[in-house]
Amino acid sequence: MRPAELRALLRRVRRGTLSPTAAASAIQTAPFERLEFATLDHQRALRTGFPEVVLGQGKTPAQLVAIARRLFAKSGLVLATRVDPAGRAALAEAFPQAETHERARAVVIRRRKPRPRRAGATRLDVLVLCAGTADLPVAEEALVTARTMGSVADLIADVGVAGLHRLMAHRKRLRSARVLVVVAGLEGALPSVVGGLTDRPLIAVPTSIGYGAHFHGLAPLLAMLNSCAAGVTVVNVDNGFGAGYAAHLIARVGR
Amino acid sequence: MRPAELRALLRRVRRGTLSPTAAASAIQTAPFERLEFATLDHQRALRTGFPEVVLGQGKTPAQLVAIARRLFAKSGLVLATRVDPAGRAALAEAFPQAETHERARAVVIRRRKPRPRRAGATRLDVLVLCAGTADLPVAEEALVTARTMGSVADLIADVGVAGLHRLMAHRKRLRSARVLVVVAGLEGALPSVVGGLTDRPLIAVPTSIGYGAHFHGLAPLLAMLNSCAAGVTVVNVDNGFGAGYAAHLIARVGR
Amino acid sequence: MRPAELRALLRRVRRGTLSPTAAASAIQTAPFERLEFATLDHQRALRTGFPEVVLGQGKTPAQLVAIARRLFAKSGLVLATRVDPAGRAALAEAFPQAETHERARAVVIRRRKPRPRRAGATRLDVLVLCAGTADLPVAEEALVTARTMGSVADLIADVGVAGLHRLMAHRKRLRSARVLVVVAGLEGALPSVVGGLTDRPLIAVPTSIGYGAHFHGLAPLLAMLNSCAAGVTVVNVDNGFGAGYAAHLIARVGR
Amino acid sequence: MRPAELRALLRRVRRGTLSPTAAASAIQTAPFERLEFATLDHQRALRTGFPEVVLGQGKTPAQLVAIARRLFAKSGLVLATRVDPAGRAALAEAFPQAETHERARAVVIRRRKPRPRRAGATRLDVLVLCAGTADLPVAEEALVTARTMGSVADLIADVGVAGLHRLMAHRKRLRSARVLVVVAGLEGALPSVVGGLTDRPLIAVPTSIGYGAHFHGLAPLLAMLNSCAAGVTVVNVDNGFGAGYAAHLIARVGR
Amino acid sequence: MRPAELRALLRRVRRGTLSPTAAASAIQTAPFERLEFATLDHQRALRTGFPEVVLGQGKTPAQLVAIARRLFAKSGLVLATRVDPAGRAALAEAFPQAETHERARAVVIRRRKPRPRRAGATRLDVLVLCAGTADLPVAEEALVTARTMGSVADLIADVGVAGLHRLMAHRKRLRSARVLVVVAGLEGALPSVVGGLTDRPLIAVPTSIGYGAHFHGLAPLLAMLNSCAAGVTVVNVDNGFGAGYAAHLIARVGR
Amino acid sequence: MRPAELRALLRRVRRGTLSPTAAASAIQTAPFERLEFATLDHQRALRTGFPEVVLGQGKTPAQLVAIARRLFAKSGLVLATRVDPAGRAALAEAFPQAETHERARAVVIRRRKPRPRRAGATRLDVLVLCAGTADLPVAEEALVTARTMGSVADLIADVGVAGLHRLMAHRKRLRSARVLVVVAGLEGALPSVVGGLTDRPLIAVPTSIGYGAHFHGLAPLLAMLNSCAAGVTVVNVDNGFGAGYAAHLIARVGR
Amino acid sequence: MRPAELRALLRRVRRGTLSPTAAASAIQTAPFERLEFATLDHQRALRTGFPEVVLGQGKTPAQLVAIARRLFAKSGLVLATRVDPAGRAALAEAFPQAETHERARAVVIRRRKPRPRRAGATRLDVLVLCAGTADLPVAEEALVTARTMGSVADLIADVGVAGLHRLMAHRKRLRSARVLVVVAGLEGALPSVVGGLTDRPLIAVPTSIGYGAHFHGLAPLLAMLNSCAAGVTVVNVDNGFGAGYAAHLIARVGR
Amino acid sequence: MRPAELRALLRRVRRGTLSPTAAASAIQTAPFERLEFATLDHQRALRTGFPEVVLGQGKTPAQLVAIARRLFAKSGLVLATRVDPAGRAALAEAFPQAETHERARAVVIRRRKPRPRRAGATRLDVLVLCAGTADLPVAEEALVTARTMGSVADLIADVGVAGLHRLMAHRKRLRSARVLVVVAGLEGALPSVVGGLTDRPLIAVPTSIGYGAHFHGLAPLLAMLNSCAAGVTVVNVDNGFGAGYAAHLIARVGR
Repeated sequence: MRPAELRALLRRVRRGTLSPTAAASAIQTAPFERLEFATLDHQRALRTGFPEVVLGQGKTPAQLVAIARRLFAKSGLVLATRVDPAGRAALAEAFPQAETHERARAVVIRRRKPRPRRAGATRLDVLVLCAGTADLPVAEEALVTARTMGSVADLIADVGVAGLHRLMAHRKRLRSARVLVVVAGLEGALPSVVGGLTDRPLIAVPTSIGYGAHFHGLAPLLAMLNSCAAGVTVVNVDNGFGAGYAAHLIARVGR
Repeated sequence: MRPAELRALLRRVRRGTLSPTAAASAIQTAPFERLEFATLDHQRALRTGFPEVVLGQGKTPAQLVAIARRLFAKSGLVLATRVDPAGRAALAEAFPQAETHERARAVVIRRRKPRPRRAGATRLDVLVLCAGTADLPVAEEALVTARTMGSVADLIADVGVAGLHRLMAHRKRLRSARVLVVVAGLEGALPSVVGGLTDRPLIAVPTSIGYGAHFHGLAPLLAMLNSCAAGVTVVNVDNGFGAGYAAHLIARVGR
Repeated sequence: MRPAELRALLRRVRRGTLSPTAAASAIQTAPFERLEFATLDHQRALRTGFPEVVLGQGKTPAQLVAIARRLFAKSGLVLATRVDPAGRAALAEAFPQAETHERARAVVIRRRKPRPRRAGATRLDVLVLCAGTADLPVAEEALVTARTMGSVADLIADVGVAGLHRLMAHRKRLRSARVLVVVAGLEGALPSVVGGLTDRPLIAVPTSIGYGAHFHGLAPLLAMLNSCAAGVTVVNVDNGFGAGYAAHLIARVGR
Repeated sequence: MRPAELRALLRRVRRGTLSPTAAASAIQTAPFERLEFATLDHQRALRTGFPEVVLGQGKTPAQLVAIARRLFAKSGLVLATRVDPAGRAALAEAFPQAETHERARAVVIRRRKPRPRRAGATRLDVLVLCAGTADLPVAEEALVTARTMGSVADLIADVGVAGLHRLMAHRKRLRSARVLVVVAGLEGALPSVVGGLTDRPLIAVPTSIGYGAHFHGLAPLLAMLNSCAAGVTVVNVDNGFGAGYAAHLIARVGR
Repeated sequence: MRPAELRALLRRVRRGTLSPTAAASAIQTAPFERLEFATLDHQRALRTGFPEVVLGQGKTPAQLVAIARRLFAKSGLVLATRVDPAGRAALAEAFPQAETHERARAVVIRRRKPRPRRAGATRLDVLVLCAGTADLPVAEEALVTARTMGSVADLIADVGVAGLHRLMAHRKRLRSARVLVVVAGLEGALPSVVGGLTDRPLIAVPTSIGYGAHFHGLAPLLAMLNSCAAGVTVVNVDNGFGAGYAAHLIARVGR
Repeated sequence: MRPAELRALLRRVRRGTLSPTAAASAIQTAPFERLEFATLDHQRALRTGFPEVVLGQGKTPAQLVAIARRLFAKSGLVLATRVDPAGRAALAEAFPQAETHERARAVVIRRRKPRPRRAGATRLDVLVLCAGTADLPVAEEALVTARTMGSVADLIADVGVAGLHRLMAHRKRLRSARVLVVVAGLEGALPSVVGGLTDRPLIAVPTSIGYGAHFHGLAPLLAMLNSCAAGVTVVNVDNGFGAGYAAHLIARVGR
Repeated sequence: MRPAELRALLRRVRRGTLSPTAAASAIQTAPFERLEFATLDHQRALRTGFPEVVLGQGKTPAQLVAIARRLFAKSGLVLATRVDPAGRAALAEAFPQAETHERARAVVIRRRKPRPRRAGATRLDVLVLCAGTADLPVAEEALVTARTMGSVADLIADVGVAGLHRLMAHRKRLRSARVLVVVAGLEGALPSVVGGLTDRPLIAVPTSIGYGAHFHGLAPLLAMLNSCAAGVTVVNVDNGFGAGYAAHLIARVGR
Repeated sequence: MRPAELRALLRRVRRGTLSPTAAASAIQTAPFERLEFATLDHQRALRTGFPEVVLGQGKTPAQLVAIARRLFAKSGLVLATRVDPAGRAALAEAFPQAETHERARAVVIRRRKPRPRRAGATRLDVLVLCAGTADLPVAEEALVTARTMGSVADLIADVGVAGLHRLMAHRKRLRSARVLVVVAGLEGALPSVVGGLTDRPLIAVPTSIGYGAHFHGLAPLLAMLNSCAAGVTVVNVDNGFGAGYAAHLIARVGR
């Protein structure tokens, strides 16, 4: 409950139009909704600027649809991530307007059409880079998330450090974005190199692409946490969603 | 062998109604039963207050049914956990009275109907909380275990720390229970927050729900072991059974 | 703020003896105290039944004394754990009544003398067992904690599983306690053996006593988390304090 | 070399005032300076907006002073972090104007006096929160870094999750800052709780404060990487510098 | 080449019946056989007392049969372990006399019938104990191995430490064997308890039976390596073969 | 851009046949090609002596074919590794001249026929040794890679340390090669033994063949990194490609 | 209590010379002795063939002397391992007859002079091999332990696999011993090589000698657990005592 | 024994000038020397091209001097690495001609003066690069080793990836060396970037410089093992010696 609401409520108590018991109850009762298997946090948009996002992992298709229905009814906007094919199919069937992003494993359901992306805009909010072709699903999850939240975002693929000139050709573009998201598997060196070339906040995303002593993403995760380039922060392995979300929050700082 | 039994047996030796050799044998022979692949511990209820529980993992359906038959014959109560679908089907077929808990992967077989749960009871023995919808199977394993052992138990789902007000709305209920079981995946922060709100013993259960640097439950396990809230103890990742069992033992302390 | 307090406050608002703004501030302002380097939680005893405990690790002697002074003034009872020799000396100098437990690295400061321990009491609240002589500091931390909180507690040392008869001789005593705390280093097998002999809740405490593939306590920690004895919960390596605290909470369940 | 510079240089080639060989050399020679043991990157301020920062770890006092002298001569501003006492003493002796931050282990040397902090400013660039008193050195390293770079920054200490009301009292202040840095040891739960209360970008910093299964910061590091609150990014264990640096970059996005 | 063979060969050189070049070649050429994908070590029985054993893991059925044919031709005895169902079928088809041990995943092929086990023998070479029903496959691999090599061996199943009396009933039998093999999953406590009851060499075998913080056998492996019972040595997780092999070597020491 | 090319370009600027803007663009634009999901580095052969190699892992068959087409068009030589069966089939269909190495999971596509291997050559560039039959796929990946790059290479299989004489018989051959690649799973001891017998550079390749405390190759990886034999360097677990590539580079040093 | 003793005791009950209550007490009371900080297991020699061994780690000098006094009084033989210099000095002062083994960190106290080692004996019970000079302390702990228990034992130092001929020169001696103990740090390859040369049981001891990715002994520990040589069992890192103890038990099998 | 020697010896047997028994003994007796604590491998230079190198770690000053004396007498060249200050002082005192490399912790003792380094030589055998000033000790160990073995070697310090232009300025020099050794702590990205710029064999050396999630060198070790640049091989953390040794072996391939 925001301070203004609380003061308004207390004024009603003083005026006698609300009993103390009812007021106590209202103060202690939060605006959420309890399903059998979930407690939906309808107040999250007020607190954090965006409705609750649905993590598809570990939820059945039926649970996904039920949760999405309630969230959509309240906020008109649902973003579901890490949704497996069965879940994606169930959501697509339940919501004709659902946009499914196969490679990113994400589903977006929204009431209004998103504003068209300004094609010629040289000023980007979020620029996503990825080191290899196999890192694309994670990079696209970041892209979809940032765009769904309202950022102008773009993606450059396959600019790993073994061929630096590919990256160098994009130097100007690197400087045109407010925030950078850099996705890399294998040794995870790309964020350090990009971080040394720019003064933008940079979110590094390790991916699980690799084998052997890669330990499913541990290698690039440790590398990114130890980056010699200042200004680099890190999210979990394969967490494109988290990177895109944080990037959007950063891009709108100062607005 | 309990002390009273031992003294009785020794008195029979003195009276000459039992030979020293037979007595030595009796003292050293324990009441268990040997199947080809298992040694059933029929004395466990005497020692620990509850018959042996069957861990389904790694047992074939045929082994499960054979073990359950012997335990049921002796104690009239069988609890089997981590039973895969084939095992659950085999037990359901062998025991018409079996109650199967699909989500919790547990099977309960008992001779007598359980006493009906007191609906209006405000005093709970065990309250199980879980952070996310995907943690429900583990939370329900805890619930089924505690109830099967005789506790009055209940469950509140999906009250993770990213929306604290959902939890706060249950503060009174938290204080009405003798023991709390708090189940969480991801970063495992819920036990610390709940532990700071209450003076109840709290058993924290990490789950394997997460990805990447979650390492199949290592992240919340370590978090819970390092909880800044005093009074928190921890069980193995996904060990709802262990939490429910310990919670029941704690709830009946002082009775 | 407890519900009764909140309702009383709201009634004052209705009566006009408290302005809405002042009430809003009171509702949102918690009773804590801010030092330069710490925010003391004076309300903790109300919430959790015991004042805030001071973790000595990482605090300078001057910080320890300053924090202890404020806590003592408010609650008359201070328990400080993991206090290094310099910190123990500083507290002993600042508080003449401080009781210092060298082996347990703990300091207790209290206004009233503790009630004398009932010598002949056969009914224990908490019984602490430890596997080896080298585990004693951790076991004593648990003992001091439980006793400081008000439990009747005792300790049996050096009853490791390589000589089971030492443990068996204490079987009756095991059953006389409400809760057991079992402390073990090396392979950490003692909790499993004790857990199979009793129906009491059992808190297992791994210690860092060992070498090589012991990894500073990881070996017994993993062993205890995987115990085949039901009813075992675990705390962090060397966390005698946490075990003693939880044991006290459990021992008073049902009172 | 920035594009404008390159074009200017090429124009000189066309005019014949610069030979192709000299131009090739200039294009390929970067503005850095080679000491016996270091290669100073004087161009970094141009590229990233701030001069090279000196990581004190592993450098001798003599190396530190030599490097600081060269950087100071070029840029008039030196920030050295993780400087041990001997290194701090050497820098203080070599630079009378050096500001030494003992707890943060940092040294700042600058030509101009920093602008006075606006005392009554309600709008903060960076707000640093820390969970416990023992986390203060890391939190202060973040604070010093952000302020040295030019951010208006502040610090709230000891607001861990075991006493949530301490944090709740600062809710308004949380929303007044552009970026949050949240520092926590033990289980590292604070970023998740704060992240659920705000729509600000949040940088989480795990610390090595803990013991046993804490593994020198691994526990909170994993917790933060798995945070259920969106918008959280993470830096290395004890890396207050990295958090403060990234926070400053973020705070100035959009300016 | 054994010393006697070498001397004989050198005498032939002196007599002139063997040229130095041929002798040099013979000294440096070992009696093995090269297939396309394997180099069979036919000399192993001479060196180590038993022909080469075939590790089935990672070999195709065709490779298994080819290797077994060559080994069988040379030594008349083949033991293949960790053979998957396809491999077992291929061997059974290729060798009508093959004995397949399904649970142990082992295949034995031998020319002569094994000598019948002396039924009433109270003196065992090797006694295998296992803690739980699910550990049986590993225990049986040890049993099959020891018997195939010629030991009189037996197995007692499901005598875990949560019901010590089951183990105690076998104390006399424990002392009748020359060597003990103790197989346990979960926390791996059984070897410590058995080791404290006997003066026999004891080989501990951790199994991968468990979940969560068991890490596929790491928990009991570490426990066994840190056993407080002296005389315990350890083999790899699930390595029943290695334990049975070493047990046989030990049992025949002094013969 | 190589220095000579740069100087030539600058001379054209001086002559006025190239505008400064066009030159700046050319200097900053690298010769690569952007597909939707990949950025092909056609300049790599110039820089590193061999065209870009395609890592099959994580790429779809369609992506593989598209990338191979572009690389083949430019360089006439494609090496794809870690290609799954579907990818191998797609490449074989798209390129009639493709050579598929099933066991090595590699595909080679080249315009010209490779020069025939000199059968009687006693001087090898690269000799690959492997410890066990199950290590063959990795060893063959190294072999295929070295041969594709132009080395004269050979392979000796199944010469593990448990039967040293098998290795000793090849001592002369060990000394005939310029570089050795030694592939081993299990405990990874072979490189140490071979390294002590020769003065050749030796590349050790751990494989994931093993179980239990092998941790998918961690055991031999650590062993090889700690080898007591000097001159041993190591590549990632199962990285036959990397070993073959490095071996080829080494073999041509000094040519 | 051994069976014969139990039967004797029961016969006294039948004869009426022992009351049932006293007999019950005797059966349940084990022959151990409780000090303030230790519970001495005087019955261990009966059970396991050797008195309790004192692990010096974590015990104060005063505790060591007190425990040694009691054990010496009962059994006339004390072996203390991992005793730090202060503990060794205290034991040497308290027991004039104490033999101190500085490098092995062990102290032996015995009433009778040990029987002189048969100098010319070609038949060894235990042969200890170590790979490097730095592994000597662990190897000597094994040697002292085996000799103190009564084995004829010897040591060959510095025969690591990088110079195999050093080992080969001892092949005959390898075969003269009943049991082998092989101690190695770095990559821990020696047990595999020795194990392939002999048919003796072999106990492998990893040491903590190494650095970097050695992880204090983890590298050779994993290598030894994965040894391709059958018949190898393993003890904890640096556990020379455990190896010597087990070797002695094995050497006397069949006597 | 080299083949030529063996044939010569066998010819003496045929001529009757050597008895078969003496010949057998000579064939089986290797040219090494046994000290009390070490077995010196005087034949190593024959086998591997360089005398045995002394690893100082874990050896006392007296052991170091004794070993060095024997090696020096035989080969006239001693290289000792990882020698602590006491060991360095002892060697310097015992050998007046000893060259001590403080930062590299290495000591070189040689009979002949090394040939002067060709100052103007543009062709290097080995070029060592290091990422940061704190990595210098490891880089210098590599440099000293390569030079002691006879390579023409040089070192470029502090060219980390956060300021790529520093590295780019050395591109020509990179291509002038036969082999590259690249030393890096923190995230260990430098080998990947350098590897993408050159066609030289590259040995990557991770260092323990870093903190927190660096895990004493694990982070760069994993990064280097997963490098996306082909041709990179890796040695142990901080193993400058191993890198320098392997680099020398590689540099002389083809000579």
